Amino acid sequence: MRRTPADWREDIYRVIFEADTPSGRLFDVVLLWSVLISVALVMLDSVASIHAVYGAWLYRAEWVLTVLFMVEYLARLVSAPRPWRYARSFFGVVDLLAIVPTYLSLFFAGSQMLLVVRALRLLRVFRVLKLGRYVREAAVLQQALRASRPKIAVFLYTVLTMVAIIGTLMYVIEGPERGFTSIPTGVYWAIVTLTTVGYGDISPVTPVGRILASMAMILGYGIIAVPTGIVTVEMARARDSGAVSTRTCHTCTGEGHDLDARHCKFCGAELPPLEPF
Amino acid sequence: MRRTPADWREDIYRVIFEADTPSGRLFDVVLLWSVLISVALVMLDSVASIHAVYGAWLYRAEWVLTVLFMVEYLARLVSAPRPWRYARSFFGVVDLLAIVPTYLSLFFAGSQMLLVVRALRLLRVFRVLKLGRYVREAAVLQQALRASRPKIAVFLYTVLTMVAIIGTLMYVIEGPERGFTSIPTGVYWAIVTLTTVGYGDISPVTPVGRILASMAMILGYGIIAVPTGIVTVEMARARDSGAVSTRTCHTCTGEGHDLDARHCKFCGAELPPLEPF
Amino acid sequence: MRRTPADWREDIYRVIFEADTPSGRLFDVVLLWSVLISVALVMLDSVASIHAVYGAWLYRAEWVLTVLFMVEYLARLVSAPRPWRYARSFFGVVDLLAIVPTYLSLFFAGSQMLLVVRALRLLRVFRVLKLGRYVREAAVLQQALRASRPKIAVFLYTVLTMVAIIGTLMYVIEGPERGFTSIPTGVYWAIVTLTTVGYGDISPVTPVGRILASMAMILGYGIIAVPTGIVTVEMARARDSGAVSTRTCHTCTGEGHDLDARHCKFCGAELPPLEPF
Amino acid sequence: MRRTPADWREDIYRVIFEADTPSGRLFDVVLLWSVLISVALVMLDSVASIHAVYGAWLYRAEWVLTVLFMVEYLARLVSAPRPWRYARSFFGVVDLLAIVPTYLSLFFAGSQMLLVVRALRLLRVFRVLKLGRYVREAAVLQQALRASRPKIAVFLYTVLTMVAIIGTLMYVIEGPERGFTSIPTGVYWAIVTLTTVGYGDISPVTPVGRILASMAMILGYGIIAVPTGIVTVEMARARDSGAVSTRTCHTCTGEGHDLDARHCKFCGAELPPLEPF
Repeated sequence: MRRTPADWREDIYRVIFEADTPSGRLFDVVLLWSVLISVALVMLDSVASIHAVYGAWLYRAEWVLTVLFMVEYLARLVSAPRPWRYARSFFGVVDLLAIVPTYLSLFFAGSQMLLVVRALRLLRVFRVLKLGRYVREAAVLQQALRASRPKIAVFLYTVLTMVAIIGTLMYVIEGPERGFTSIPTGVYWAIVTLTTVGYGDISPVTPVGRILASMAMILGYGIIAVPTGIVTVEMARARDSGAVSTRTCHTCTGEGHDLDARHCKFCGAELPPLEPF
Repeated sequence: MRRTPADWREDIYRVIFEADTPSGRLFDVVLLWSVLISVALVMLDSVASIHAVYGAWLYRAEWVLTVLFMVEYLARLVSAPRPWRYARSFFGVVDLLAIVPTYLSLFFAGSQMLLVVRALRLLRVFRVLKLGRYVREAAVLQQALRASRPKIAVFLYTVLTMVAIIGTLMYVIEGPERGFTSIPTGVYWAIVTLTTVGYGDISPVTPVGRILASMAMILGYGIIAVPTGIVTVEMARARDSGAVSTRTCHTCTGEGHDLDARHCKFCGAELPPLEPF
Repeated sequence: MRRTPADWREDIYRVIFEADTPSGRLFDVVLLWSVLISVALVMLDSVASIHAVYGAWLYRAEWVLTVLFMVEYLARLVSAPRPWRYARSFFGVVDLLAIVPTYLSLFFAGSQMLLVVRALRLLRVFRVLKLGRYVREAAVLQQALRASRPKIAVFLYTVLTMVAIIGTLMYVIEGPERGFTSIPTGVYWAIVTLTTVGYGDISPVTPVGRILASMAMILGYGIIAVPTGIVTVEMARARDSGAVSTRTCHTCTGEGHDLDARHCKFCGAELPPLEPF
Repeated sequence: MRRTPADWREDIYRVIFEADTPSGRLFDVVLLWSVLISVALVMLDSVASIHAVYGAWLYRAEWVLTVLFMVEYLARLVSAPRPWRYARSFFGVVDLLAIVPTYLSLFFAGSQMLLVVRALRLLRVFRVLKLGRYVREAAVLQQALRASRPKIAVFLYTVLTMVAIIGTLMYVIEGPERGFTSIPTGVYWAIVTLTTVGYGDISPVTPVGRILASMAMILGYGIIAVPTGIVTVEMARARDSGAVSTRTCHTCTGEGHDLDARHCKFCGAELPPLEPF
């Protein structure tokens, strides 16, 4: 039986896009390692002393990896059922950006730094891990974070308003001669302080400035409790609703019953007994 | 049918104070954007290099926006059912403070910095968001924070006492010649350390000072758990009391039914309808 | 009816030691304010520029307050049912330490700094607040922290071992010429890093040192989750056990029944119905 | 009755390896103190001023302790039922490493620093504590951390990808002349920033760099909520599954009984006895 081009395309698709066959999994592992190595090479090449000695070797290795990634990109384009849709997807764009900078560097010096965008390809690792127990964990995390979003937005918004006001006050109090050269600088300082990063490149000197700074610090130290509380509660919820959704009512197919429920909360029919899990 | 002045006033009131009509919503969105732009202009004007080149333009834009905000303020005063009550409310004062500094800057140089107070007007954004799902989220957050207040007060009080004692000890141990010029400076340092901000503008040098500092750091690192725990527990509570209604099954008096439950999960009887809350 | 000395003593006792009569409460409030003022005076006196101008006034104010505190201390001694027991109690010692340094300063210059110990007297504030809703909150906090202690001890112990090893490694890697002058200095640096304080007075320079430092930072960033988790869980527990203990079995007087329990978990008798709360 | 060598061996084994006899416990306490003292000596010896004065004494004390630890190591080897298995175990290797550096220091100056590895022996402390209530606490902590591992791995992986991208961007934006000498340096800076350590040895200066840094800080400030949430939820779970036994009522199959329950809280029937776990 002869294999048609369509068969070939499906075989390539299986290997490249799916991760549930041995060869597909092998492909993903090899891909991850070459991405890791390629990112490491770009990083090392930026170190002046390493560049001076191994620059030529790193340059060649970069080209070899770029050609390999280009072949992979073309194979993806060819085998994808809807090539154009793939090309515009998040990973399609990232895959392209992982190749382009090397060519650009022929014309613009330094543009190969952009190769670090390849690090984003590492996010594919989750697909590889998908086969294991990581799916459920990632799902719980995602559900919790999605549910937290509106509350986090309200929180972030309040923080940004506070930071704008504190930053301006500090600019007025401390003034340009003590490092607070402009309001944006003051806002930058306020963010550095409120997030408890505290570089110390700019720090208050006047008594009034230090009192305001102290209040900002205690505020920042305290309000970290808010996003933490939000995410924790949502995570507990996501996990509970995961433990809960295993039982389905045989009468109305309703889901989401508590573990101690004996009757369906939607139609009142008796629920099947809870299986050990 | 002719429109009376009272009709006009009510129309203006609808647009300016309410956000549930298309024109009211549009007004709020336009207002938010002009506040954002006006805050950005004040910030940019404080950057010396930008002020040198675009100072004149920024000055004019500021006046345009100030006039617009003044018109809005007057419209609010005119259309409010009780103008005096509005004028003394939080947003009434903020709305006034958003106009005054520009006029003041005619007499006192630099007072236009105070325009940053306009950032507070951004808090109106919550009113705009009110129409969406943000109401419930904000309510849960508020309820949790209100319930946490007494415990947070006890916590803050303990922290301030600790900071006063640690700061004085460091002043005695390290002394003025190593940056700890006074007890207030020592307290400032203690706050910087306990909140894990750590600027490094003042840092202990003597062995005893470093041992005390290490203890303060570990303390600060550990006690962040307390407000976080408080807020998390209250947030879980606020959410539960929201998600689990106070409905009781009229047949078996079972409690703890989900908001989407129609039948008692203990005996299967129909539940009373959910009241709006 | 003539008042005996014993009556007088009891009156004084009521005012000074108790806080549930109007005069007792007034006494506590006045005491708190004078402690606050006295602490503020000591702090201000340590500022060189203030001392130069107002030093004499502050000196007199200090003596006035010291005499007042001494009168109060003697009144406490006289009115306490067991004077010796009071004198050895925590607050008895603190009350004494709040007077002594002023007298000491007649002989030893600078010893009046120790007056800051007066800040500890502020902890009496909790007794004043006791009358309000703060009792229950403080009790919940205390119960949670007491229950967390063994787990926190295990955690602290592990952190100290890690800090000792990381600090020594950094001393070996970076060496004295880069600020890591000894192993204790290295341990100090490790604590500064692990607690995310990060002064920057000492920071790694070599590549290996920076890699180790990065690992220490991520570790410190992550393990903050452990004490937070511990305290949060215990706090949820302390609060729940508060919500639970309201119902008592009428047969065996057992307490601690869940909200959804219908029978006593100790003797099996039917529980009284749950009252609305 | 004469004691055979096997008896002796068992006696030694009891004392050295077990901690539930008085002599075994005494041995562990003595061991812990000598480890603590030995670690303190190594640390003090690294301080130049102390080494200059007490160097000779510290040297002798080190040898005394090393000989003691060697005797202990040999006793462990002799008395262990499977000496080879002990020698290759974690504590076997640590026990050996606690002796070797002193001998090495005869040939290589400075190698006695490695004696700090002795700090790892302190982890034996958990075995001593085992006798108290710390077992259950440590078990709950361990169970929670083990359950958190896959989610923490997903989290760490995401953080490392972010750090790689942010670090490279900062290298491109700020450049070598502002301290960002290479991409690895940029990544180091990104870790220092994201974990809110913030040394300030390298900090952004350009406006674009500061905006990116601000975003990284807010990100780092926010995502600390994720591991905290994970660990808190798992800890609540571990505690619940510990506190609420898996006992089922044999009459109504009700679950979720407290550890101190003797009767089913749903039907009142007697519960099966609690098995030791």
